[in-house]
Amino acid sequence: MSATVEETTELAPRLPADNLRRAVRIGICGLGTVGSGTVNVMARNGEEIAARCGRPVEIVQVGARRDNAACDTSKLNVTREIFDVADNPDVDILVELIGGTTVARELVLAAINNGKHIVTANKALIAEHGNELFAAAAEKGVTIAYEAAVAGGIPIIKSLREGLVGNRIQWLAGIINGTGNYILTEMRDKGRSFAEALAQAQELGYAEADPTFDVEGIDAAHKLVIMASLAFAMPLAFDKVYTEGISGVSSEDIRYADELGYRIKHLGIARRTEHGVELRVHPTLIPQRRLIANVNGVMNAVLVNGDAVGPTLYYGAGAGAEATASAVIADIVDVARTLEAKPDQRVPAAGVAEGSQAGPQVLPMDEVVTSYYLRISAHDKPGVMSQVAKICSDQGISIEALIQHEPAEGEALVPVVILTSRAKEARLREAVAQIEALDTVEGEVVRIRVETLG
Amino acid sequence: MSATVEETTELAPRLPADNLRRAVRIGICGLGTVGSGTVNVMARNGEEIAARCGRPVEIVQVGARRDNAACDTSKLNVTREIFDVADNPDVDILVELIGGTTVARELVLAAINNGKHIVTANKALIAEHGNELFAAAAEKGVTIAYEAAVAGGIPIIKSLREGLVGNRIQWLAGIINGTGNYILTEMRDKGRSFAEALAQAQELGYAEADPTFDVEGIDAAHKLVIMASLAFAMPLAFDKVYTEGISGVSSEDIRYADELGYRIKHLGIARRTEHGVELRVHPTLIPQRRLIANVNGVMNAVLVNGDAVGPTLYYGAGAGAEATASAVIADIVDVARTLEAKPDQRVPAAGVAEGSQAGPQVLPMDEVVTSYYLRISAHDKPGVMSQVAKICSDQGISIEALIQHEPAEGEALVPVVILTSRAKEARLREAVAQIEALDTVEGEVVRIRVETLG
Ligand SMILES: NC(=O)c1ccc[n+]([C@@H]2O[C@H](COP(=O)([O-])OP(=O)(O)OC[C@H]3O[C@@H](n4cnc5c(N)ncnc54)[C@H](OP(=O)(O)O)[C@@H]3O)[C@@H](O)[C@H]2O)c1
Ligand SMILES: NC(=O)c1ccc[n+]([C@@H]2O[C@H](COP(=O)([O-])OP(=O)(O)OC[C@H]3O[C@@H](n4cnc5c(N)ncnc54)[C@H](OP(=O)(O)O)[C@@H]3O)[C@@H](O)[C@H]2O)c1
Repeated sequence: MSATVEETTELAPRLPADNLRRAVRIGICGLGTVGSGTVNVMARNGEEIAARCGRPVEIVQVGARRDNAACDTSKLNVTREIFDVADNPDVDILVELIGGTTVARELVLAAINNGKHIVTANKALIAEHGNELFAAAAEKGVTIAYEAAVAGGIPIIKSLREGLVGNRIQWLAGIINGTGNYILTEMRDKGRSFAEALAQAQELGYAEADPTFDVEGIDAAHKLVIMASLAFAMPLAFDKVYTEGISGVSSEDIRYADELGYRIKHLGIARRTEHGVELRVHPTLIPQRRLIANVNGVMNAVLVNGDAVGPTLYYGAGAGAEATASAVIADIVDVARTLEAKPDQRVPAAGVAEGSQAGPQVLPMDEVVTSYYLRISAHDKPGVMSQVAKICSDQGISIEALIQHEPAEGEALVPVVILTSRAKEARLREAVAQIEALDTVEGEVVRIRVETLG
Repeated sequence: MSATVEETTELAPRLPADNLRRAVRIGICGLGTVGSGTVNVMARNGEEIAARCGRPVEIVQVGARRDNAACDTSKLNVTREIFDVADNPDVDILVELIGGTTVARELVLAAINNGKHIVTANKALIAEHGNELFAAAAEKGVTIAYEAAVAGGIPIIKSLREGLVGNRIQWLAGIINGTGNYILTEMRDKGRSFAEALAQAQELGYAEADPTFDVEGIDAAHKLVIMASLAFAMPLAFDKVYTEGISGVSSEDIRYADELGYRIKHLGIARRTEHGVELRVHPTLIPQRRLIANVNGVMNAVLVNGDAVGPTLYYGAGAGAEATASAVIADIVDVARTLEAKPDQRVPAAGVAEGSQAGPQVLPMDEVVTSYYLRISAHDKPGVMSQVAKICSDQGISIEALIQHEPAEGEALVPVVILTSRAKEARLREAVAQIEALDTVEGEVVRIRVETLG
């Protein structure tokens, strides 16, 4: 500690030879993208990690149905039966990296039952079964850590649960699905259609063959509900999230948004209101000047607004073998450090002490108040605009901005783009239904919510 | 834990009535901006903080020479003698918010000696006396927490020390002085001169009457050295930081930078190289497309590049009563949670376990390799450019971009702006000396370093 800068030229820290703490022993289940990334980073940075952790971190077992050429397990103890790891008395921490919600749930419960701590990257598991798993862990005096489950390598769980602990969080909004953000970025930068951009994402390995989870917002909803539970100290409420995907976003809307000074991003938004917590995932227009509007490609970012700190933003890679491993290892070190501590000396999995959770209502979507972007295909006849304005005004909605270009040569339909004032969803929905029923309007009205995030 | 969302409508979490952990007892010294902010936020969010902490947090004493109208201390135990707090046997954690490095050092040492943990927002104290204080604390088995010392409410210390613990940090670069960033932003957005923008900052209370600490980069150097010590697990080396302020930046340079696709920011940069660690604070051209180039006004941001996670960015308010209180409270909760834990179960103050620090050399500035922006005032004569190009090329420096506009009406001098290739500082300095010695060149060459941060 008192060494001066000149004394050594060592570039990496190293545990002293007389270190007395025994190694923490981890067992990794699943050797896919994240599992192999974790093995590789632990091997490469093992000495430094031990010095930071204050004790060596040892992989005592790996459970994998087959080898993965991406990492070298020749010196590791590999079992083909993942439940062996949950039963291995030498394992202190089981690292669950198999994904899914059925076998993973059983595996985690088995390990908890055997008194093991859990580190997981599995957002689906936490979002859908977290309440049950946290209760089981609390009962056994062990912890469940899940930094890697949200926004990959960005330490957002730690920031929400520890770094911002002095705040009442008012709202948070995140770009928390890299695939979706990649697609929207490609659509804007290269004028591609949704289908083209998706195909491109699949080619590059950013999107799965079945892209539903990413593109329809389910993955983002998993992550949102985890962040909201920490921000508002409430139970995980995955089934209460309103979820809308990006497959309906057109490059035309992206262009109009640009013209109005906005970008379209797929956001997960959680907000505390007097009547309950908003939980929603949907495409959103946000002002171009906001930092988060400029988060592009596969990158993730979460904007968190606390009553003391104001807005803070966390940005980084939301996926990838080593970025996710970074979060897994941070969790391992946290657990390792307090392995012998009393349960109440650890940061609680749910962010608040046992029995302290609040239970705010989730606000029904009809009650949510936002502004809207509307794109109407209207016949080029006088009177359309006054009809639309009348319908809106009857619902207490005013028109804040409007774009109406000349109709294209030979086109009977002209796109009318409107930004509305803030109004309840129910009002908006009613107005849109009435607009769609007009003789002068063709087909469905395109609607995308607008947030200023100010 | 197993409550469902409907069961209660409570909006704030609350410790259960049967909570068994005694309150953690804090003593706050200094009731200025941050001290009063801390008292206010603790009063407002006390219940939620207790629920997250797992125990009540109680202010048992405040040491303040006088009252501060910004906060209500009528229900608090106030002493006019701050050393009372260090001697108070009821105090578990002394929160040092007086600033400065003399009395603050004595106060902190006295408290450590009495077995108290320390929370401080004092970057000067940590940067200049941290090595000594950490050693004293380790000896007594107590800890020193200093999240608020860097970038106000942004949890950057926690992110570096815990969130990114799996990484070898390769470099970090931060906008870590809000006053300086405000001034540069005003200069760019409104075309103001440095002096005008500084006066404006002073009027708004963003800059002190004596702005030296902010404007000349000393404050940023304090913060940089703290982040570098954590990132590279090295002792604090404040006297080794190369520091250059922003008083030499002109709005002309900001305009040329814009033209070249860059923004000028005052950055603190720390980078691991084969031959040592770079530690430097100076105005820097960075590509406009980088997120951090778009961090404006008084906001702070730190970009951290880890070998596993890649680039991550942390953004928020770097100062202000409540933003800084947010960080102070996060530290209090961390310490409170592990108050009864063994010292090695806490995150070590220096980021690595006792005795594990590396001691990399700090790279002498002459050895640092960067690109440069140069602005030369040349007589409008043929041959100047070929002379400049020859000098550069003799030093192994090539010219990557060049702007040379027509001379203004009646002007004999024409500004020549150059972006150079990457080269050692020593080479660059030599080239500039030779350019300045040319008959065809007038006055000093303006030089600003360039970083791609890619
Ligand atoms: N990939 C990312 O960037 C990323 C980022 C954040 C979080 N995550 C999360 O991390 C977890 C792992 O993701 P991944 O991308 O690493 O997945 P992956 O590449 O598909 O790897 C999953 C691994 O688990 C094994 N596995 C799956 N089901 C199993 C079962 N029932 N029994 C035994 N082994 C089983 C697979 O074995 P086989 O090869 O034999 O099928 C494979 O080794 C998921 O929860 C995911 O949501 C991933
Ligand atoms: N302000 C920010 O936004 C900010 C952000 C991050 C970190 N910090 C750090 O937080 C610390 C406090 O900053 P601040 O802005 O709150 O300063 P401040 O407003 O000047 O308050 C300092 C307080 O300490 C008292 N004090 C100073 N020297 C003292 C002494 N020798 N004996 C007794 N009391 C003494 C002052 O009392 P008097 O009023 O009687 O002089 C005042 O109550 C500093 O280390 C600063 O670098 C500040």
